[in-house]
Amino acid sequence: MHLDFEKLNGLVPVIAQDVETGEVLMLAWMNQEAFEETLQTGRACYYSRSRKRLWRKGEESGHVQDVESVYIDCDADTVLIKVRQRGGAACHEGYKSCFFRQLDGDQTRVVGERVFDPRVVYGKP
Amino acid sequence: MHLDFEKLNGLVPVIAQDVETGEVLMLAWMNQEAFEETLQTGRACYYSRSRKRLWRKGEESGHVQDVESVYIDCDADTVLIKVRQRGGAACHEGYKSCFFRQLDGDQTRVVGERVFDPRVVYGKP
Repeated sequence: MHLDFEKLNGLVPVIAQDVETGEVLMLAWMNQEAFEETLQTGRACYYSRSRKRLWRKGEESGHVQDVESVYIDCDADTVLIKVRQRGGAACHEGYKSCFFRQLDGDQTRVVGERVFDPRVVYGKP
Repeated sequence: MHLDFEKLNGLVPVIAQDVETGEVLMLAWMNQEAFEETLQTGRACYYSRSRKRLWRKGEESGHVQDVESVYIDCDADTVLIKVRQRGGAACHEGYKSCFFRQLDGDQTRVVGERVFDPRVVYGKP
Protein backbone atom coordinates (compact mmCIF):
# COMPACT_ATOMS: atom_id res chain seq x y z
CA MET A 1 0.00 0.00 0.00
CA HIS A 2 1.53 3.26 -1.18
CA LEU A 3 0.85 6.57 0.54
CA ASP A 4 1.95 9.77 -1.18
CA PHE A 5 4.17 11.62 1.29
CA GLU A 6 5.79 13.73 -1.42
CA LYS A 7 3.18 16.46 -1.83
CA LEU A 8 3.77 17.95 1.59
CA ASN A 9 7.43 17.37 2.38
CA GLY A 10 7.03 13.94 3.88
CA LEU A 11 3.72 14.50 5.63
CA VAL A 12 0.10 13.53 5.00
CA PRO A 13 -2.92 15.07 6.70
CA VAL A 14 -4.82 12.67 8.92
CA ILE A 15 -8.44 13.13 9.96
CA ALA A 16 -9.42 11.49 13.24
CA GLN A 17 -13.11 10.65 13.52
CA ASP A 18 -14.95 9.24 16.52
CA VAL A 19 -15.82 5.68 15.51
CA GLU A 20 -19.07 5.71 17.46
CA THR A 21 -20.54 9.15 16.93
CA GLY A 22 -18.93 10.07 13.60
CA GLU A 23 -17.81 13.38 15.05
CA VAL A 24 -14.65 14.75 13.43
CA LEU A 25 -12.23 15.14 16.31
CA MET A 26 -9.11 16.68 14.80
CA LEU A 27 -6.75 16.94 11.89
CA ALA A 28 -3.09 16.20 12.40
CA TRP A 29 -0.11 15.01 10.35
CA MET A 30 1.84 11.81 9.96
CA ASN A 31 5.16 11.07 8.35
CA GLN A 32 5.98 7.54 7.19
CA GLU A 33 7.36 6.63 10.61
CA ALA A 34 4.29 7.88 12.47
CA PHE A 35 1.99 6.09 10.04
CA GLU A 36 3.84 2.80 10.48
CA GLU A 37 3.90 3.12 14.26
CA THR A 38 0.16 3.81 14.25
CA LEU A 39 -0.49 0.65 12.25
CA GLN A 40 1.82 -1.43 14.42
CA THR A 41 0.56 -0.25 17.79
CA GLY A 42 -3.07 0.48 16.94
CA ARG A 43 -2.70 3.87 18.65
CA ALA A 44 -2.57 7.18 16.85
CA CYS A 45 0.97 8.49 16.50
CA TYR A 46 1.27 11.80 14.67
CA TYR A 47 4.15 14.02 13.64
CA SER A 48 4.18 17.35 15.43
CA ARG A 49 5.16 20.12 13.02
CA SER A 50 5.87 22.55 15.86
CA ARG A 51 7.94 20.15 17.95
CA LYS A 52 9.44 18.44 14.89
CA ARG A 53 9.13 14.96 16.34
CA LEU A 54 6.75 12.04 16.68
CA TRP A 55 3.77 12.91 18.82
CA ARG A 56 2.18 9.92 20.47
CA LYS A 57 -1.28 11.37 21.00
CA GLY A 58 -2.03 11.30 24.71
CA GLU A 59 1.61 11.01 25.77
CA GLU A 60 1.12 13.91 28.17
CA SER A 61 -2.62 13.89 28.86
CA GLY A 62 -3.19 10.12 28.76
CA HIS A 63 -5.92 10.75 26.21
CA VAL A 64 -4.76 8.22 23.66
CA GLN A 65 -6.65 7.31 20.51
CA ASP A 66 -7.22 3.62 19.84
CA VAL A 67 -7.46 3.18 16.09
CA GLU A 68 -10.31 1.00 14.91
CA SER A 69 -9.93 1.39 11.14
CA VAL A 70 -7.84 3.25 8.58
CA TYR A 71 -8.98 4.65 5.22
CA ILE A 72 -6.97 6.06 2.32
CA ASP A 73 -8.44 8.60 -0.08
CA CYS A 74 -8.58 8.38 -3.88
CA ASP A 75 -5.29 10.23 -4.35
CA ALA A 76 -3.58 8.31 -1.54
CA ASP A 77 -2.46 11.58 -0.01
CA THR A 78 -4.86 11.79 2.94
CA VAL A 79 -5.72 9.36 5.71
CA LEU A 80 -8.91 8.96 7.73
CA ILE A 81 -8.75 7.05 10.98
CA LYS A 82 -11.71 6.02 13.08
CA VAL A 83 -10.75 6.08 16.72
CA ARG A 84 -11.89 5.58 20.25
CA GLN A 85 -10.85 8.72 22.08
CA ARG A 86 -9.80 7.86 25.61
CA GLY A 87 -10.62 10.54 28.18
CA GLY A 88 -13.44 11.77 26.00
CA ALA A 89 -11.63 14.77 24.52
CA ALA A 90 -9.26 15.09 21.58
CA CYS A 91 -8.53 18.80 21.90
CA HIS A 92 -5.81 20.14 24.16
CA GLU A 93 -8.24 22.89 25.15
CA GLY A 94 -10.44 20.26 26.76
CA TYR A 95 -13.11 19.98 24.11
CA LYS A 96 -14.25 16.70 22.64
CA SER A 97 -13.39 17.93 19.14
CA CYS A 98 -10.86 20.51 18.04
CA PHE A 99 -13.62 21.93 15.84
CA PHE A 100 -15.50 23.40 18.78
CA ARG A 101 -16.01 26.82 17.20
CA GLN A 102 -18.65 27.46 14.59
CA LEU A 103 -18.51 30.35 12.22
CA ASP A 104 -21.38 32.77 12.74
CA GLY A 105 -21.09 35.76 10.43
CA ASP A 106 -17.71 37.34 11.08
CA GLN A 107 -17.49 35.83 14.53
CA THR A 108 -17.13 32.34 15.93
CA ARG A 109 -19.09 30.90 18.79
CA VAL A 110 -18.24 27.90 20.91
CA VAL A 111 -20.56 25.01 20.14
CA GLY A 112 -18.38 22.16 21.40
CA GLU A 113 -18.64 20.34 24.65
CA ARG A 114 -15.86 20.94 27.17
CA VAL A 115 -14.88 17.68 28.77
CA PHE A 116 -11.90 18.64 30.92
CA ASP A 117 -10.09 21.66 32.26
CA PRO A 118 -6.72 21.90 30.51
CA ARG A 119 -5.19 23.59 33.55
CA VAL A 120 -5.80 20.41 35.52
CA VAL A 121 -4.75 17.94 32.82
CA TYR A 122 -1.62 19.73 31.70
CA GLY A 123 -0.86 21.57 34.92
CA LYS A 124 -0.42 24.87 33.12
CA PRO A 125 -2.31 28.12 33.63
CA MET B 1 -12.32 35.78 12.45
CA HIS B 2 -8.70 34.98 11.68
CA LEU B 3 -7.66 31.85 9.81
CA ASP B 4 -3.99 30.93 9.73
CA PHE B 5 -3.02 30.57 6.08
CA GLU B 6 0.69 30.97 6.80
CA LYS B 7 1.60 27.45 7.85
CA LEU B 8 1.03 25.96 4.40
CA ASN B 9 1.91 28.68 1.92
CA GLY B 10 -1.48 30.31 1.83
CA LEU B 11 -3.62 27.19 2.12
CA VAL B 12 -5.62 25.52 4.85
CA PRO B 13 -6.89 21.92 4.76
CA VAL B 14 -10.67 21.65 4.67
CA ILE B 15 -12.62 18.57 5.70
CA ALA B 16 -16.01 18.13 4.06
CA GLN B 17 -18.46 16.06 6.08
CA ASP B 18 -21.95 14.95 5.07
CA VAL B 19 -24.27 16.99 7.28
CA GLU B 20 -26.83 14.21 7.49
CA THR B 21 -24.84 11.00 7.83
CA GLY B 22 -21.63 12.39 9.35
CA GLU B 23 -19.61 10.56 6.70
CA VAL B 24 -16.29 12.26 5.93
CA LEU B 25 -16.47 12.93 2.20
CA MET B 26 -13.12 14.44 1.29
CA LEU B 27 -10.25 16.66 2.24
CA ALA B 28 -9.33 19.57 0.02
CA TRP B 29 -7.63 22.97 0.32
CA MET B 30 -8.70 26.58 0.41
CA ASN B 31 -6.81 29.79 0.06
CA GLN B 32 -8.23 33.02 1.43
CA GLU B 33 -10.12 33.72 -1.79
CA ALA B 34 -11.69 30.26 -1.92
CA PHE B 35 -12.66 30.51 1.73
CA GLU B 36 -14.32 33.87 1.24
CA GLU B 37 -16.15 32.72 -1.86
CA THR B 38 -17.41 29.67 0.00
CA LEU B 39 -18.81 31.86 2.75
CA GLN B 40 -20.38 34.29 0.32
CA THR B 41 -22.00 31.74 -1.98
CA GLY B 42 -22.73 28.96 0.49
CA ARG B 43 -21.14 26.51 -1.94
CA ALA B 44 -17.79 24.84 -1.46
CA CYS B 45 -15.03 26.48 -3.44
CA TYR B 46 -11.59 24.95 -3.03
CA TYR B 47 -8.14 25.72 -4.36
CA SER B 48 -6.80 23.05 -6.67
CA ARG B 49 -3.11 22.50 -6.00
CA SER B 50 -2.63 20.63 -9.28
CA ARG B 51 -4.49 23.15 -11.44
CA LYS B 52 -3.29 26.12 -9.38
CA ARG B 53 -6.64 27.86 -9.50
CA LEU B 54 -9.96 28.06 -7.69
CA TRP B 55 -11.94 24.87 -7.97
CA ARG B 56 -15.66 25.33 -7.63
CA LYS B 57 -16.56 21.83 -6.53
CA GLY B 58 -18.99 20.40 -9.06
CA GLU B 59 -18.09 22.85 -11.82
CA GLU B 60 -17.63 19.93 -14.21
CA SER B 61 -19.76 17.17 -12.71
CA GLY B 62 -22.57 19.32 -11.33
CA HIS B 63 -22.01 17.67 -7.96
CA VAL B 64 -21.83 20.84 -5.93
CA GLN B 65 -21.61 20.96 -2.16
CA ASP B 66 -24.05 23.21 -0.34
CA VAL B 67 -22.43 24.33 2.88
CA GLU B 68 -24.62 24.12 5.96
CA SER B 69 -22.10 25.11 8.63
CA VAL B 70 -18.43 25.96 9.04
CA TYR B 71 -16.16 25.11 11.96
CA ILE B 72 -12.64 26.31 12.80
CA ASP B 73 -10.24 24.22 14.85
CA CYS B 74 -8.37 25.25 17.99
CA ASP B 75 -5.28 26.40 16.10
CA ALA B 76 -7.36 28.16 13.43
CA ASP B 77 -5.42 26.34 10.74
CA THR B 78 -8.01 23.76 9.67
CA VAL B 79 -11.63 24.08 8.57
CA LEU B 80 -14.49 21.62 8.82
CA ILE B 81 -17.54 22.17 6.64
CA LYS B 82 -20.79 20.25 6.88
CA VAL B 83 -22.30 19.94 3.43
CA ARG B 84 -25.13 18.55 1.37
CA GLN B 85 -23.45 16.71 -1.47
CA ARG B 86 -25.51 17.08 -4.63
CA GLY B 87 -25.44 14.04 -6.90
CA GLY B 88 -24.71 11.81 -3.94
CA ALA B 89 -20.97 11.46 -4.56
CA ALA B 90 -18.04 13.66 -3.60
CA CYS B 91 -15.27 11.58 -5.22
CA HIS B 92 -14.30 12.00 -8.85
CA GLU B 93 -14.07 8.21 -9.00
CA GLY B 94 -17.81 8.02 -8.41
CA TYR B 95 -17.79 7.04 -4.75
CA LYS B 96 -19.78 8.84 -2.11
CA SER B 97 -16.62 9.51 -0.13
CA CYS B 98 -13.04 9.82 -1.33
CA PHE B 99 -12.14 7.54 1.58
CA PHE B 100 -13.62 4.47 -0.10
CA ARG B 101 -10.62 2.23 0.53
CA GLN B 102 -9.96 0.66 3.89
CA LEU B 103 -6.57 -0.58 4.94
CA ASP B 104 -6.53 -4.32 5.50
CA GLY B 105 -3.05 -5.52 6.41
CA ASP B 106 -0.72 -4.42 3.62
CA GLN B 107 -3.57 -4.12 1.14
CA THR B 108 -6.59 -1.92 0.73
CA ARG B 109 -10.09 -3.04 -0.08
CA VAL B 110 -12.94 -1.01 -1.46
CA VAL B 111 -15.58 -0.46 1.18
CA GLY B 112 -17.25 2.62 -0.29
CA GLU B 113 -20.41 2.83 -2.24
CA ARG B 114 -20.06 3.70 -5.93
CA VAL B 115 -22.78 6.15 -6.91
CA PHE B 116 -21.88 7.02 -10.49
CA ASP B 117 -19.67 5.89 -13.34
CA PRO B 118 -16.98 8.55 -13.83
CA ARG B 119 -16.75 7.70 -17.55
CA VAL B 120 -20.33 8.88 -17.94
CA VAL B 121 -20.10 11.97 -15.73
CA TYR B 122 -16.77 13.24 -17.00
CA GLY B 123 -16.93 11.73 -20.48
CA LYS B 124 -13.48 10.23 -20.19
CA PRO B 125 -12.39 6.61 -20.43
